Amino acid sequence: MKQNSFVIKGDICYSADKKTLLTFKDHYLICLDGNSAGVFENIPEEYSKLEIHDYSGLLVVPGLVDLHIHAPQFTLRGLGMDDELLDWLNNLTFPEESRYSDMEYARAAYTDFAEVMRLGATTRACIFGTTHVPATELLMEYMEATGLHTYVGKVNMDRNCPAIMVEDTGKSVKDTEEWINFCKSRGFLNTKPMLTPRFIPTCSDKLMQLLREIQEKYALPLQSHLSENPAEIEWVKELCKESKFYGDAYDSFKLFGRDVPTIMAHCVYSEENELSRIKENGVFIAHCPQSNTNIASGIAPVRKFLDMGINCGLGSDVAGGASESILRAMADAIQMSKMRWRLQDKNLKPLTFEEVFFLGTKGGGEFFGRVGSFEKGYEFDAVVFDDAVPSYHSPLTLRQRLERHAYLSNGRGTAHKFVCGTQIF
Amino acid sequence: MKQNSFVIKGDICYSADKKTLLTFKDHYLICLDGNSAGVFENIPEEYSKLEIHDYSGLLVVPGLVDLHIHAPQFTLRGLGMDDELLDWLNNLTFPEESRYSDMEYARAAYTDFAEVMRLGATTRACIFGTTHVPATELLMEYMEATGLHTYVGKVNMDRNCPAIMVEDTGKSVKDTEEWINFCKSRGFLNTKPMLTPRFIPTCSDKLMQLLREIQEKYALPLQSHLSENPAEIEWVKELCKESKFYGDAYDSFKLFGRDVPTIMAHCVYSEENELSRIKENGVFIAHCPQSNTNIASGIAPVRKFLDMGINCGLGSDVAGGASESILRAMADAIQMSKMRWRLQDKNLKPLTFEEVFFLGTKGGGEFFGRVGSFEKGYEFDAVVFDDAVPSYHSPLTLRQRLERHAYLSNGRGTAHKFVCGTQIF
Repeated sequence: MKQNSFVIKGDICYSADKKTLLTFKDHYLICLDGNSAGVFENIPEEYSKLEIHDYSGLLVVPGLVDLHIHAPQFTLRGLGMDDELLDWLNNLTFPEESRYSDMEYARAAYTDFAEVMRLGATTRACIFGTTHVPATELLMEYMEATGLHTYVGKVNMDRNCPAIMVEDTGKSVKDTEEWINFCKSRGFLNTKPMLTPRFIPTCSDKLMQLLREIQEKYALPLQSHLSENPAEIEWVKELCKESKFYGDAYDSFKLFGRDVPTIMAHCVYSEENELSRIKENGVFIAHCPQSNTNIASGIAPVRKFLDMGINCGLGSDVAGGASESILRAMADAIQMSKMRWRLQDKNLKPLTFEEVFFLGTKGGGEFFGRVGSFEKGYEFDAVVFDDAVPSYHSPLTLRQRLERHAYLSNGRGTAHKFVCGTQIF
Repeated sequence: MKQNSFVIKGDICYSADKKTLLTFKDHYLICLDGNSAGVFENIPEEYSKLEIHDYSGLLVVPGLVDLHIHAPQFTLRGLGMDDELLDWLNNLTFPEESRYSDMEYARAAYTDFAEVMRLGATTRACIFGTTHVPATELLMEYMEATGLHTYVGKVNMDRNCPAIMVEDTGKSVKDTEEWINFCKSRGFLNTKPMLTPRFIPTCSDKLMQLLREIQEKYALPLQSHLSENPAEIEWVKELCKESKFYGDAYDSFKLFGRDVPTIMAHCVYSEENELSRIKENGVFIAHCPQSNTNIASGIAPVRKFLDMGINCGLGSDVAGGASESILRAMADAIQMSKMRWRLQDKNLKPLTFEEVFFLGTKGGGEFFGRVGSFEKGYEFDAVVFDDAVPSYHSPLTLRQRLERHAYLSNGRGTAHKFVCGTQIF
């Protein structure tokens, strides 16, 4: 089933930019050596010998990108949703993550996680593991087997968490280097390590300094959480009295973009100074609307992120989010932007479907390079949606079909998936 | 497959009241002549001869109740979601509803609608049709065939809507009586007519007065919309200068509860005076969280409804809501109550899962009588959920399984359904 040069026929959609969704009914999409060669009304002569996958009548879109998901929390989807962030962490999440010291548990749980990720519409993801090295290595083995391209992080946390979870600072750093060396020696093709200090409240200054040293030594990207919840932000203010704002605390350790490709999840309460620094440092924001709703955090000002030209994509944030579907995250992002507009700030207009589709493909894809589009030269990630539903009587535009699929599919309906030109199914 | 006395074995859950979810692992639920005889750990001697449906390991809950859904908008699910209420009505909804003058279209669209309703977890619904008598009669035929118990309304609207939709006042009333007489002569068992003036802006004073006369003549319940959107409310203020508030306009025509069983959808912006009148008149509120989000209306103060003891249930409001699942409406109601708490009013605590489950079963069920519970004497509506999902490693309580099913099922997983003791599948 693997082939890196071929043609797909179908109803093709992709974002040119955040305002523009391009749609091509019954067109041909060319994959050449794992990269897109573009979309054509007729197959150009030079590609006429390539095999054709005929997906006529189905929607063909770039693979979806999940910038923020917690693999060990997959077992918790839809549970404990009556708690707020800090209670939810202590009552449910930390106890669950501690179970991944047990490799039997890790094997069962991560098998499920990897299979659901394989079968969904996501082709790229940035994934939190737990603090445990063996379980994180196992997770990476499983993700490698899916064919998806992912970054995976062993989590660091050496304070302010239950005894069963807390790491000794020295051991946290030593384990991190051991894990990085495993990744190097293992030679994964598609699965890369990413530094993952959980967030400021659970990482001592010393740990952050040592992670910066590791970052410099191995040139690793980084993912963490930022400005998710008012109580968390107050806590950070107490912990980092010298910092001008939450993000400035990361930046004081040189772990906030600049030379480090960095993703910060949430940024619900980021103010002008923090957003300016995010923009200046090239940090990516992972917008996780369902999680921000479930954990009662609030609604991020995504319109502002877009207007400022900040790098931004979507995150499912399982299991703050109950669904791993980035299509669902698109619909959630629109819905929540409407509530923010209605209840909080009439200056920030609701997001449009064009904008959230951009965020879930090209916006997040930019973290991975030339990913998230079918423009010539982009890495060939594609998903094929069977969007038939009962009650499809009107002739619909491709844009309408795609919008409806975001609202109705709920993780179903992915018929085929390709990552870098390799067919997953 | 039809039988009105039998036993169900399974994991049984139902609401005692809005604060209390009762759960019974591996228990027996008795249906006697279409009514519940209660839940037992062992089958009482007197019922020992009844047939047993063994649904061990599955969740058994009261049938779900949808207090507000628009059948003709089923074709529009997930479309036009970037519009606000009045634009959405004019651009999309009114043109779509006008198509139901064509019986071919109505046949195709309502066939799909009825089948999806049959297969879902809803056992009772209050349904808007269109203004057209033949299409509404057809919808009622189809709903009768599903076995669900429903109220269905021919819509009335004689002003402020596109020419293609607007009714002549006299004809609207004449058609309504013709339709009511059809219902009487047709002798439906489970499908009843309900007066359905669309909302104040599209119904002249004269029409409302004449509908009140029809109401008195035929003793029909009534459904409409109330205080959904700020622009709509301003409009009603202009149209009904003598009314103290929106609901008072309905009440001035004696079409607001009291002797008329009445459902008002939304009540997002109902203030103290309106809520007091709702309470006093025994009006039911249909809370439609997903629709209020999609059409950017706002978030209803459901905590206040509950605290005041107002009759309240959930509505999918398809196609303002994209999903017909009342389980999804439960999760949406929690999520939106959290956003209201966070962004708008810290005095109204977020809804709990116990509360939304009550709203989606017994809360809405009360409109139909003794419906929505397994307490002895309640009409026997039951749905059986197969809630297995990947990543089910921990032993979960029934309450946890039910919560998770609300967040993850998205309309899937209804294995069996009974209405008034009749098995639908």
